[in-house]
Amino acid sequence: MARKSFPLSKVYGLLEPGPVVMVTTARDGHPNIMTMSWHTMIEFVPPLVGCVISDNSHTFGMLMATNECVINIPSVEIAEKVVGCGNTSGASINKFEKFCLTPKPAAVVGAPLIEECFANLECRLIDTSMVSRYCLFVVEIIKAWIDPAVINPQTIHHLGRGNFMVAGEKIKLRSRMK
Amino acid sequence: MARKSFPLSKVYGLLEPGPVVMVTTARDGHPNIMTMSWHTMIEFVPPLVGCVISDNSHTFGMLMATNECVINIPSVEIAEKVVGCGNTSGASINKFEKFCLTPKPAAVVGAPLIEECFANLECRLIDTSMVSRYCLFVVEIIKAWIDPAVINPQTIHHLGRGNFMVAGEKIKLRSRMK
Repeated sequence: MARKSFPLSKVYGLLEPGPVVMVTTARDGHPNIMTMSWHTMIEFVPPLVGCVISDNSHTFGMLMATNECVINIPSVEIAEKVVGCGNTSGASINKFEKFCLTPKPAAVVGAPLIEECFANLECRLIDTSMVSRYCLFVVEIIKAWIDPAVINPQTIHHLGRGNFMVAGEKIKLRSRMK
Repeated sequence: MARKSFPLSKVYGLLEPGPVVMVTTARDGHPNIMTMSWHTMIEFVPPLVGCVISDNSHTFGMLMATNECVINIPSVEIAEKVVGCGNTSGASINKFEKFCLTPKPAAVVGAPLIEECFANLECRLIDTSMVSRYCLFVVEIIKAWIDPAVINPQTIHHLGRGNFMVAGEKIKLRSRMK
């Protein structure tokens, strides 16, 4: 797949609709994947994202140790893999191998891109002041990639306990909102 | 409409798919509405939500002064009104009147419910420590309502500049995730 650099100023449009994402980290040559629904844009430029990552997760320690991650956005085609990554812990398995996902080197960070995702956002951890109270990390997106062949990705959106809404039709309204 | 109390422990399933929401506040008898896409669940129980509310907005001052708001979740039927509320400021107009929306008294807070929304979440502001840096408010949902007649609400999800994705089909996957 020919991945294309994507403007940082447009990244908010990928995350603000609330897709389930897959957070990748890597440490000492071991990559990991975490499925995440609790995230929000915090700033347009530079794009800042707030991510809630449980301190029970393997990713928590990886992120704290390396200060880097990638937010990968999957579409419905790989929904089973997304849920598989949510049901398991990287403490005991290599999720890339287990779920036949392909790690690709990122441009800036040590964590891998997931080849099967249509967008990949390389992030640097910039603020841990809300971690002890809320497990809330603030990351800055420093490099973004999209697959230009995917025009209308059907993202998935968690409704709780394995129920997901799949992105439906698009509508356009006259808006002054960014 | 017969509104029904909704368990606080299930609220995360309403917000984590990332719908556009409408935040209502009220002060000195004046109600206001703000359209918002930047929010995330932070805790299941009690349900905590992180909300990014610009300090340029009228709602910012209303929320800081009253420590209360309601998060109302609209569906596509009122998308034009949602965008209308996003395009205007409560500093100069009464948005309930302008967009023919109906304020209903909440049970616990002074801010009104929007009758035309299928879910209404009464909130108390509990943490302003991230407001100066990120305009990020942490609110606790203390009472939740849904319209039991709405089974499969078509929420709207902002993609930027007036483009919205409308909630599509639902799928169920075997998941251990909450």
